[in-house]
Amino acid sequence: TMLKKVLLGSLGAALVLTAGILLGHFGIQRGSTHLSHDRSLVPMCLSRELTKVPHMATSPGDEQTVQYMLKRWQDPDTGLDQAWREEYKVYLSFPDPNTPNKVTVGESWEKAYSSDQEDPEVVQPYAAYAPAGHPKGRLVYANQGKPSDYFLLNQTLNLTGTVAITRYGGEGRAGKAINAAPYGVIGVLVYTDPWDINDGKMSDNNETYPYSWYMPPSGVERGSFNTHYGDMLTPYLAAKDDTYRIPEKNITGIPPIPTQPIGFEDAYALICDVKLDIYNREELKNSANVMGVIRGSVEPDRYVIYGNHRDSWVHGAIDPSSGTSVMLEVTRVLGRMVKQGKWRPRRSIIFGSWGAEEFGLIGSTEYTEEYYSKLSERSVAYINVDIACLIAFLQVKTPGSDSSSVYDNWIRYFNRTSPAYGVIPNVGFLTGAGSDYAAFIHFLGITSMDISYTYDRTKTRARIYPAYHTAYDTFDYASKFIDPGFTSHQTVARTAGNVLMRLADSLLLPFNCSDYAETLEGYLSKAMELYTDGLAAHMISIEPLQTAVRNFRSAAARLDQLIRDSDLANETPLKVRRINDQLMLLDRAFLDPVAFPDRYGYRHVIWASSKAGQATFPGLADAYTRAASTGLDNDWKEAHRQLSILIQAIQGAAHTLGDTI
Amino acid sequence: TMLKKVLLGSLGAALVLTAGILLGHFGIQRGSTHLSHDRSLVPMCLSRELTKVPHMATSPGDEQTVQYMLKRWQDPDTGLDQAWREEYKVYLSFPDPNTPNKVTVGESWEKAYSSDQEDPEVVQPYAAYAPAGHPKGRLVYANQGKPSDYFLLNQTLNLTGTVAITRYGGEGRAGKAINAAPYGVIGVLVYTDPWDINDGKMSDNNETYPYSWYMPPSGVERGSFNTHYGDMLTPYLAAKDDTYRIPEKNITGIPPIPTQPIGFEDAYALICDVKLDIYNREELKNSANVMGVIRGSVEPDRYVIYGNHRDSWVHGAIDPSSGTSVMLEVTRVLGRMVKQGKWRPRRSIIFGSWGAEEFGLIGSTEYTEEYYSKLSERSVAYINVDIACLIAFLQVKTPGSDSSSVYDNWIRYFNRTSPAYGVIPNVGFLTGAGSDYAAFIHFLGITSMDISYTYDRTKTRARIYPAYHTAYDTFDYASKFIDPGFTSHQTVARTAGNVLMRLADSLLLPFNCSDYAETLEGYLSKAMELYTDGLAAHMISIEPLQTAVRNFRSAAARLDQLIRDSDLANETPLKVRRINDQLMLLDRAFLDPVAFPDRYGYRHVIWASSKAGQATFPGLADAYTRAASTGLDNDWKEAHRQLSILIQAIQGAAHTLGDTI
Repeated sequence: TMLKKVLLGSLGAALVLTAGILLGHFGIQRGSTHLSHDRSLVPMCLSRELTKVPHMATSPGDEQTVQYMLKRWQDPDTGLDQAWREEYKVYLSFPDPNTPNKVTVGESWEKAYSSDQEDPEVVQPYAAYAPAGHPKGRLVYANQGKPSDYFLLNQTLNLTGTVAITRYGGEGRAGKAINAAPYGVIGVLVYTDPWDINDGKMSDNNETYPYSWYMPPSGVERGSFNTHYGDMLTPYLAAKDDTYRIPEKNITGIPPIPTQPIGFEDAYALICDVKLDIYNREELKNSANVMGVIRGSVEPDRYVIYGNHRDSWVHGAIDPSSGTSVMLEVTRVLGRMVKQGKWRPRRSIIFGSWGAEEFGLIGSTEYTEEYYSKLSERSVAYINVDIACLIAFLQVKTPGSDSSSVYDNWIRYFNRTSPAYGVIPNVGFLTGAGSDYAAFIHFLGITSMDISYTYDRTKTRARIYPAYHTAYDTFDYASKFIDPGFTSHQTVARTAGNVLMRLADSLLLPFNCSDYAETLEGYLSKAMELYTDGLAAHMISIEPLQTAVRNFRSAAARLDQLIRDSDLANETPLKVRRINDQLMLLDRAFLDPVAFPDRYGYRHVIWASSKAGQATFPGLADAYTRAASTGLDNDWKEAHRQLSILIQAIQGAAHTLGDTI
Repeated sequence: TMLKKVLLGSLGAALVLTAGILLGHFGIQRGSTHLSHDRSLVPMCLSRELTKVPHMATSPGDEQTVQYMLKRWQDPDTGLDQAWREEYKVYLSFPDPNTPNKVTVGESWEKAYSSDQEDPEVVQPYAAYAPAGHPKGRLVYANQGKPSDYFLLNQTLNLTGTVAITRYGGEGRAGKAINAAPYGVIGVLVYTDPWDINDGKMSDNNETYPYSWYMPPSGVERGSFNTHYGDMLTPYLAAKDDTYRIPEKNITGIPPIPTQPIGFEDAYALICDVKLDIYNREELKNSANVMGVIRGSVEPDRYVIYGNHRDSWVHGAIDPSSGTSVMLEVTRVLGRMVKQGKWRPRRSIIFGSWGAEEFGLIGSTEYTEEYYSKLSERSVAYINVDIACLIAFLQVKTPGSDSSSVYDNWIRYFNRTSPAYGVIPNVGFLTGAGSDYAAFIHFLGITSMDISYTYDRTKTRARIYPAYHTAYDTFDYASKFIDPGFTSHQTVARTAGNVLMRLADSLLLPFNCSDYAETLEGYLSKAMELYTDGLAAHMISIEPLQTAVRNFRSAAARLDQLIRDSDLANETPLKVRRINDQLMLLDRAFLDPVAFPDRYGYRHVIWASSKAGQATFPGLADAYTRAASTGLDNDWKEAHRQLSILIQAIQGAAHTLGDTI
């Protein structure tokens, strides 16, 4: 998982999915588990198989995994209808294998960061796309590296020529350096603070792994330090051999100064002057997706897509192999039913094992670029299962252990009160680019869902499971501390498989557009509360936005009524197709390719990420916040433009839900 | 018609339509005329009714026409299922009613251009969006005002401070001033040269109207002098009351210096120093579309759209009222069948009477912006009939007069040799923004067609019918010289109605994707001939483009084979829907919203207009031409980028035609 700050808000969800749209028809239901007749789930051995060797993108381990997946998906008894590999040539970032990156403090302290202290045979990136360089300067603590952190620090200190040390969280990885550079900061260190990840535990004698799920002092959290997703040299184009590549100097959204992640053990050792010797360099390398399909019986031209990435930092037992295990298990169960002639879904199912996700969701993004038209026209939904389980010993009871259902657990530990339904399981929003759903929802406007089983947040303040992106994310760690017995893996496999089957097989798509209306109404009321007066002071009326949301609600109610009044199974197949098309294309109606022209791949005006930190329309929130802060006429114009874009998109969505002519 | 240079290339076509895609199934066939059972066509009285008063956009005459059309379309016996008006507030350009624009030569000669010399009660724009100003300078003749014209002129003359006089043709209207300004030219006059429009005739005693179809010496050809289409203050947004409007200073693509069209009588009178007094000014005004629908019986969520604009310069008997007459006649005939319960099309039909076309295709563009999602998802085709007849006494025989068919005339006077079919009727390409099809094909990627009956080009060199955009385009002119007896109007009504009914009613859409492949192959072979070596010299291979076109051809052949092997009427309705969706969405697959970021509304990478003047892929042609001329590395990069965009689009189109999973 290329986890970014934007995902943090949704980690509390047991099932995290975009929009309330999916919620009504199955999210909330106490559905049967279609996969329950197949209890022979074998994620344990799969996970062991998948995590034996490191499988960073383009490593020999990655290629082994490709072969392993192809073998499984081409298995004559349990494979899919078809499976193949697709190759892209993408821009990745690696350390120099001969000259390790180094952090030096005076004469006395020095540490190399290329072979991993926890796993010495592995040479691999720590901060992908962080530039090479040799900054040396006084160390300053810059909190989370947010713009406000540097702004405040600069009130009392001259930051020019300093090296900033920041902790993970609160700001995207690259942002910590991008925000620093304007103040003259020449290098950035990033560490994982035990208060953010370990509930304060930091002793390697008895508090951290292998004694618990907490990260040991030497653990280093890696990551990709780019802010756009997809191959950076081929924006909007699939990265084939002959594809045009932009000049490297035109790349935006990467750190302008050398940056290096370190463990908290080292962070606490650093004082005074620090020197960084960073030798990272970029290379064009091949990376593969593995694709598999089950052909639909009735509507082969409608796709439900299910995916996860394959590459990891070091071993990646949880991220991503927990998700890969689940995917392989789902394909094995469904594949066997298909091969035995017992079942074939109404719609087609496409499985994708994405390459190079950790470098910026590259495999999935290139796939959406290459098949843009076809996927836009035909995809019903995308399901992502990446970190299937991040539960640990603090986990809520899993269904397997006491036979309470996912529904019961979900509504107990993560709920909200809906105006329409009362207390229901809560669902987060996919407003960021945390994993491979990003290109599907933000670029293509395909309704998407990210599923994982998570921990009880009242029991830990951990930002994410502590071994995340470190060399400690191993089979041993996962089997001891994350999911002993792998029962939660089973639960996720059954849940995801269930969702997949309902999407692929139900006559009427299990989407509820009135739930979407509820979300828009929530966003609207927040926008009115925050922005009405400020906009009015600049002669901009928020009223047309109210009208648009009201129209959306009416159109949704009309469609719901039409569905209730219909006997779809016994009417012409074109009627249910028509209604399904309205539901399928609803998220597409929110796309506007010129809404955010400087943000590659963000076209969805409801779910785009936002810096404003408000539960409301992202484009309007960001533009308003900026205008209110600068007071510039041009910024108020942009706020008005964002408002008009939003109104037109919501009206357009209402039109697609409304009477078809 | 907002006719521009780009349309010139297609005037030779009897039926002008985008892509060969429509050709195969009905374009070439000697089809029956479905409308032939209704011979009571009444375009004559319609035309008289429509042209009694001037109906420039926002004029009282325009409002009268709106009311007239609503009355017709809401008629209980011959109206449509539903009809209504839709209002936009758009940025238009008008002269000052109190202070006429003036051209002055020394002391002796002066002419006012606000009330029309031919039609004194009409005060209206000559050059919409040409700025106000009072330039005075030496007059220089600058041919057609092309970049090369000014470049050559500047070799021998200092153009600074001069007023250029140019003739219509060879360059877009605004271009004549945009190209001039960098040389210091301070004003531009544009006239219609008798050699270009009148076959050299210029006497008002016996050679020109009212003695013939030729334009009298006083005739002035008006036009809109903007290069982008749609409301200029609200790009990509429907121009509602509250919509954000860009600052006027940010408008691009309009003349930077005062510009005035004049008649050739005046052009020949001008010598030496000339002074222009231009008082044009811009205003926000309401403009309406009139919409009407016939609901489809089987697939109401599939639309065939038929449209024409309603506004004209002065009376506009031909442009647009010949087309409006035809549309009213088609709606009357179809409406009556529907009201009598005798017929209802399989798919829905939407009729649009667009406002403010002459100012830059504004009504149709705002419509596509407002209903973007719904129209993208559901539109099968757009048919435009604007200038229905521009035939005059030079016309080819019309079917009415000697009962030869449209097909016979078409193949006789305008044919080509196809590799697949031999000699067939020729079809032009809609590569420009000549009329309201522009937003449909270039912005939305909806397969479009523009139909008009034209003259025998071996008999006249006229750029277009001579009264075009002058006050002489009247009912009298049309009934005497363009279409005596209005038989060609009938022919066009039957042809357009026939096409419309086939699109709306046939089980399988009458699209032939193999004809599209033939066009792509033609473009490819031209591109290879012109660009292979030059690209190779910059390490850019054209081979992947060959592969993409080959893949498209295979996919098209596969789909054709599937259609031939199917018994669609007796298989599941979802099968023909699936195939129809592939055909319908084929043109959509060629859209790329980031291909031409500085050209509003151009997203179709095959049919976008091009300056290179080659029958090949426009983006590649323009980028290559530029790179070859400047030799700059960045320009070669752009050529490579355009090539990659093109390859990806063609591959994407091949994917949509290919096996659906």
